Amino acid sequence: MAVRHYTLDFKLSAPADHSATVRGLQSIFQEQEMTETVHDTEGHGYLATFIGKNGRFAILRLHSHGLVTFDLQCCEGDDSAQVDNLLNALEKKLKTLLHGTIQTVKRLPALQRGGEVDRYWPTADGRLIEYDIDEVVFDKDSAYQNIKILHSHQFGNILILNGDVNLAESDLAYTQAIMGNGREHYAGKEILILGGGDGGILCEAVKLKPKMITMVEIDQMVIDACRKHMRKTCGNVLDNLKGDCYEVLVEDCVPILKKFVEEGRTFDYVINDLTAIPISTAPEEESMWEFLRLILDLSIKVLRPSGKYFTQGNCVNLTEALSEYEGLLRRLSCNVGFSKEVVCVPSYLELWIFYTIWKK
Amino acid sequence: MAVRHYTLDFKLSAPADHSATVRGLQSIFQEQEMTETVHDTEGHGYLATFIGKNGRFAILRLHSHGLVTFDLQCCEGDDSAQVDNLLNALEKKLKTLLHGTIQTVKRLPALQRGGEVDRYWPTADGRLIEYDIDEVVFDKDSAYQNIKILHSHQFGNILILNGDVNLAESDLAYTQAIMGNGREHYAGKEILILGGGDGGILCEAVKLKPKMITMVEIDQMVIDACRKHMRKTCGNVLDNLKGDCYEVLVEDCVPILKKFVEEGRTFDYVINDLTAIPISTAPEEESMWEFLRLILDLSIKVLRPSGKYFTQGNCVNLTEALSEYEGLLRRLSCNVGFSKEVVCVPSYLELWIFYTIWKK
Repeated sequence: MAVRHYTLDFKLSAPADHSATVRGLQSIFQEQEMTETVHDTEGHGYLATFIGKNGRFAILRLHSHGLVTFDLQCCEGDDSAQVDNLLNALEKKLKTLLHGTIQTVKRLPALQRGGEVDRYWPTADGRLIEYDIDEVVFDKDSAYQNIKILHSHQFGNILILNGDVNLAESDLAYTQAIMGNGREHYAGKEILILGGGDGGILCEAVKLKPKMITMVEIDQMVIDACRKHMRKTCGNVLDNLKGDCYEVLVEDCVPILKKFVEEGRTFDYVINDLTAIPISTAPEEESMWEFLRLILDLSIKVLRPSGKYFTQGNCVNLTEALSEYEGLLRRLSCNVGFSKEVVCVPSYLELWIFYTIWKK
Repeated sequence: MAVRHYTLDFKLSAPADHSATVRGLQSIFQEQEMTETVHDTEGHGYLATFIGKNGRFAILRLHSHGLVTFDLQCCEGDDSAQVDNLLNALEKKLKTLLHGTIQTVKRLPALQRGGEVDRYWPTADGRLIEYDIDEVVFDKDSAYQNIKILHSHQFGNILILNGDVNLAESDLAYTQAIMGNGREHYAGKEILILGGGDGGILCEAVKLKPKMITMVEIDQMVIDACRKHMRKTCGNVLDNLKGDCYEVLVEDCVPILKKFVEEGRTFDYVINDLTAIPISTAPEEESMWEFLRLILDLSIKVLRPSGKYFTQGNCVNLTEALSEYEGLLRRLSCNVGFSKEVVCVPSYLELWIFYTIWKK
């Protein structure tokens, strides 16, 4: 059982006349059989709460600085036509009562709180975003993280790891970006994918006839969930962990990278598709940045001199995190150059930075 | 002066123990010097409101069906570290008190209500979206509509007409889509643009060396605002209403289209970039659909037999509106074929349909 939370706000050029406004609205609340409680705000404007039928609860605030806010909380199953009527009546009446001082009227789509399906997945820069999610397809905790696959009408299934939107079936743009947006030639090349459990990169890469792709993904449960529920992303490539030109190692990538360094094994392309805050069982990760540096250092070591390292960065708005990452690139044990690209990934609802890194 | 509205919700597998939960939270509210009022909900769970210093107002609801919601409203300028501390303390305490029954904990980014800058511009399918808007660049009512240009850190300036996000400086994808996404050859062709006051299509079209572009935009104020504030979109093309290969008529497109039909004037491409609910001074527009049909009929009449008509449709989720539009296409006075394409326009934050229409 969820709660729908409606808001209706009037921004005014002058404070509202408390008694006239409250008197003017009285008949609406009486008609709705709502019981009023007036609160003492100690000089912070007028504040009344109202309890109505079916557990309806409303708050009317007339702020002393010229803002009127109204909140209405209704339980799921409440008559939404009645609720709309109440809000319409209030909006109409307030427009009359506050006439001449109104700067803006804002009535937001209702917040859905505590619903079966959680539609709110904030952006990386912390903005409130409501997705068109209508179904929980998968929701389990693995040994490493919480794995959700939620269905969106427009984006298809969306993989959400520990609350972060990772990839939706609509997001070929992500996969293309982290593979160099068509500027690279993968035919006959050796490729290392770090993470990538959704199978998107693997699926696109095998089409390009590489010599060999090695993918190192720590979480078998991600692979299994995506194989089943993200087939527009992974095709049939996760049906087997080994194919003609690829092999998936279900392992922590840190010891694998170290082994490759020791063995002197190198790659033409290293694609880092680990989650934004990577997961590892290794003891080295004193901090996220230490861990990022470790992965980068090891990756550059297994990169051939003419090779390229691709990774996603962050949303364009987190300029400090991006600068810090670029600072890290300048302090690697091996001298590297880098370029970046702004990409619109459909399900992210914010622009994202992708990096290309090479040995100098 | 704005209000920040925080929410913190616990979804439970069983109803919370009212008295134990309320008792457990008491010390937090006392520490914050908040005065409690317990309300009679007539059997709809526990509901208490709290008035604190600086006009802080909180609501605690323990719903009988196993949902705990907490709301906190604070005025702008209130100490946000203190507010965060209160929320952190509550979240921590509730996690202890409700231990074993918690399914999800959700703390959304705070709603900013009544702020100087309005960051909430819902999608066409009615979802709540917070943009990274930090400045009102332009805000005026013309004779036809409200015109806003708001600055977004990631999207650049955004043109918002009557509350609808029209185009941002990041949205070359929109302009490319409504021009056929590179599948057409504009060189030497005659083009008619309906609307398009932001100058985006005009700017891209003149680069392609057409014979002549005629653009018919009703609202001089849109042109003036975009010339000044949307230069990443329009370049310098709106600096003059006439150029080597283009002419902008600041007129209602309906009488112009009728005149073209009478004169027998035709075009290779007609690009309908009118706002989703078009504006006209013509008396014919009994309804939006009647008006859409009128524009379509007239446009097809001025289209050469081998010509193409391009237009944006709607968001992919509004399937009924899209079906209705496609029904309209089948009932035009002239027989037409059509195709559609799904496009990700960065600032829209929802996938959008674009139509290509041709004479059969």
